[in-house]
Amino acid sequence: MQIPQPYLLFLGDVTDPLAAKTARGILHWRPDSCVGQLRLTAQTVSLQLADLSLADAKNLGVKTLVIGTANAGGVIPESWQQVLKDAVQMGFHIASGMHQRLRDIPGLSALAEQHQVQLFDVRHYDTPLAVGTGQQRAGKRLLTVGSDCSVGKMYTALALDRALNQAGTPAQFKATGQTGILIQGQGISVDAVVADFISGAVEALSPGFDTHAWDIIEGQGSLMNPSFAGVSLGLLHGAQPDALVLCHELGRPHIRHLPHMPMPDISEVLAANLQAARLTNPKAEFVGICLNTSAISEQEAQLVCEQWRERYRLPVTDPVRFGVDNIIQRLVDRGA
Amino acid sequence: MQIPQPYLLFLGDVTDPLAAKTARGILHWRPDSCVGQLRLTAQTVSLQLADLSLADAKNLGVKTLVIGTANAGGVIPESWQQVLKDAVQMGFHIASGMHQRLRDIPGLSALAEQHQVQLFDVRHYDTPLAVGTGQQRAGKRLLTVGSDCSVGKMYTALALDRALNQAGTPAQFKATGQTGILIQGQGISVDAVVADFISGAVEALSPGFDTHAWDIIEGQGSLMNPSFAGVSLGLLHGAQPDALVLCHELGRPHIRHLPHMPMPDISEVLAANLQAARLTNPKAEFVGICLNTSAISEQEAQLVCEQWRERYRLPVTDPVRFGVDNIIQRLVDRGA
Repeated sequence: MQIPQPYLLFLGDVTDPLAAKTARGILHWRPDSCVGQLRLTAQTVSLQLADLSLADAKNLGVKTLVIGTANAGGVIPESWQQVLKDAVQMGFHIASGMHQRLRDIPGLSALAEQHQVQLFDVRHYDTPLAVGTGQQRAGKRLLTVGSDCSVGKMYTALALDRALNQAGTPAQFKATGQTGILIQGQGISVDAVVADFISGAVEALSPGFDTHAWDIIEGQGSLMNPSFAGVSLGLLHGAQPDALVLCHELGRPHIRHLPHMPMPDISEVLAANLQAARLTNPKAEFVGICLNTSAISEQEAQLVCEQWRERYRLPVTDPVRFGVDNIIQRLVDRGA
Repeated sequence: MQIPQPYLLFLGDVTDPLAAKTARGILHWRPDSCVGQLRLTAQTVSLQLADLSLADAKNLGVKTLVIGTANAGGVIPESWQQVLKDAVQMGFHIASGMHQRLRDIPGLSALAEQHQVQLFDVRHYDTPLAVGTGQQRAGKRLLTVGSDCSVGKMYTALALDRALNQAGTPAQFKATGQTGILIQGQGISVDAVVADFISGAVEALSPGFDTHAWDIIEGQGSLMNPSFAGVSLGLLHGAQPDALVLCHELGRPHIRHLPHMPMPDISEVLAANLQAARLTNPKAEFVGICLNTSAISEQEAQLVCEQWRERYRLPVTDPVRFGVDNIIQRLVDRGA
């Protein structure tokens, strides 16, 4: 699967800025791939991109219309369906991270076939997979893991990918969730595969390679989150990581959506991940910690990073505020 | 889902006794629910049950025809399809643990609808699930876990279930794999659910209860098997077990199908399971170890069980050779 870029970001009639998080992520990490935005109303959230009609976008070389929004049910509203059909008829591919499948929109699959374009439902994965084996494979891999969901694992992976490439160490980002897949144009939504194939999916996503230095694999969930830990463990075993980076949000009161589950101790998170990782890669090591410090001032954040560096003897940073150079340095020092 | 019993066990034209393992398991654990067998040829494996025609079975009150065989591809041979159609037309439900779905046999779904019978594809699970929460729930739960796949987790769970009930402690067996589901008539094939819902599936399978003493939950895979550990961890978190029983096969040279993966150290398996289990049940404890000692003599096996009892300070038994009374005693001593 490869979603052709560049993109036209479809924002529908969404007015809640949070609901456009996916589109914002694509624009942040792949600005050169985002030619413009398509909004159905004047009140729709704007990403400060050029407002383009489908015809404009066609003239500017756009290949894919991307539904870059989320809503509670994950359902594609009926009021959007005409635009999607128009887009298909004009030769655009469509990519969506919604739960509802594009192909379940009446008539859309037939139109897509007729116009020889593809419908990418990145939250679903239907291609047959093999079960994982844990067999050693060529190439170095870094995986971001978390103390919980939504603590910056995708952001950290993308920041490391960018920094490594900028430092002349060729890296590839490997997406495991819908936003990451839309950013990279490829990947596997590992939480959507059949449970037996979690580690196998990651082995397929990051096969043996000698073409570049690192695969940077986006983590999902947390070994400490009782909703999703199975996904996280399969991902960890399948990733076979040489290097791990822990992501954590400072000040989070409890596991996300679960007030009865306290946040785990960081030492325990580090130990549990390392122990599990070594089943498929005995050389696995943590090379850094990325904190989301948005709840405190920048000065306080610097202090916390310094304290954590001493406590855990690892490079610690907030990738948004301070970048990831100290982690890159650690990778270089290890001989990456 | 409840598969109506009693059963007629369908053996097709299978000649390899190993391929009839599922039918044999159903007969072993639910002899009163197995009225007879249906074999397509004289060479077909026999379970020493009465050979019945569909008409005979109907007269004897059979409700469901069960495909109790396995083959490499999991495909239902074309030569079996006519019998399945005849059965549906005579008002039998059909249950299958094959990979290929009954409803993908051309015409079978329509026939089933017409004759108001059900097709049970127990290896698949299509009912919507919620994600797990780890929220404490009423009732006591025991989970069997393993050093690997195929080490006796289902056998042990069924043996414990039977022994508890015989001792006057009401227990219910909760099936998580296709053979267990066919034996019990209900359950969820947890390795077949979408990865995000592994722990949620087990919470749905064993909800809070005050109607009996124990739910005995069948484990799957192993935290130490890199192919399936994600399933095992989600199952462990969802089961929220008060009690754990470790299953292990003596003399297994390496993880099943993976010659490059050595068998793990038993102390490590115990520790990893206990640590993970305590995320959702801080009171989780091991109450016994079940060994498959079929590779050694009964006398040697007794010696090994004695040695393991001292080493791990737990009741140790081979459930096939020596029963599970010592584990039941431990449960009673704990105040079950």
